Amino acid sequence: MTVSNIEDFIHLMKFNEQGLISAIAQQYDTNEVLMMAWMNQEAIRETLVTQQVCYFSRSRNRLWRKGETSGQVQKLHEMRLDCDGDCLLLLVDQKGVACHTGRRSCFYRAWQNNDIVEISQPLIDPNELYHH
Amino acid sequence: MTVSNIEDFIHLMKFNEQGLISAIAQQYDTNEVLMMAWMNQEAIRETLVTQQVCYFSRSRNRLWRKGETSGQVQKLHEMRLDCDGDCLLLLVDQKGVACHTGRRSCFYRAWQNNDIVEISQPLIDPNELYHH
Repeated sequence: MTVSNIEDFIHLMKFNEQGLISAIAQQYDTNEVLMMAWMNQEAIRETLVTQQVCYFSRSRNRLWRKGETSGQVQKLHEMRLDCDGDCLLLLVDQKGVACHTGRRSCFYRAWQNNDIVEISQPLIDPNELYHH
Repeated sequence: MTVSNIEDFIHLMKFNEQGLISAIAQQYDTNEVLMMAWMNQEAIRETLVTQQVCYFSRSRNRLWRKGETSGQVQKLHEMRLDCDGDCLLLLVDQKGVACHTGRRSCFYRAWQNNDIVEISQPLIDPNELYHH
């Protein structure tokens, strides 16, 4: 392929009715899946240009520069797109923790032996995360 | 927590207007992210009971037993839920390939050096996948 700009890459993506595409964040070196969030075209452009991950917050209805208040930023290593064009995989270097509960990953509840088990504990007091 | 059945686990999940929740499939031992798809409550119950991953196909509007025609099944090792309750992480053992293009992972297009690069090649001829 001989594309050469971000708009060509965005052109391959399929956005939903709200103009959003889902994005999975994965720690680039350990492959740990950290979180899933959403991006719009503006968030994708900003992320690719700055290499700092920016999502679109559906609850706040605005760009969400990950770590802007908590300091727990994600540096982008690589952005990948799936075969259907409707999901992004972000290889990132997560500073501190991804989850607002203070855990490294948002996926901390597991179904094990017919019970719900919390498989990780907070590394940072969540009350500390938003006192910057 | 002292829950003890699948319905209690499902009760923690938030489904969208279509009754669906997104699900990321990750190879349990290598941590490779394979694909993202959707599940409804019925698909989740079947997956937890049978330990064979079953999604809900939005295009076909019915349960999609992964590998039912291609043979490329996913055995469930663990199901995890994120903090918001609106995304599942499935740790699976993927037989063969996850992607309908014959590639191991659906995330085979990457943005590198201002170009779109195919970072993996098909391991199986896609024409072979649906001749079972």
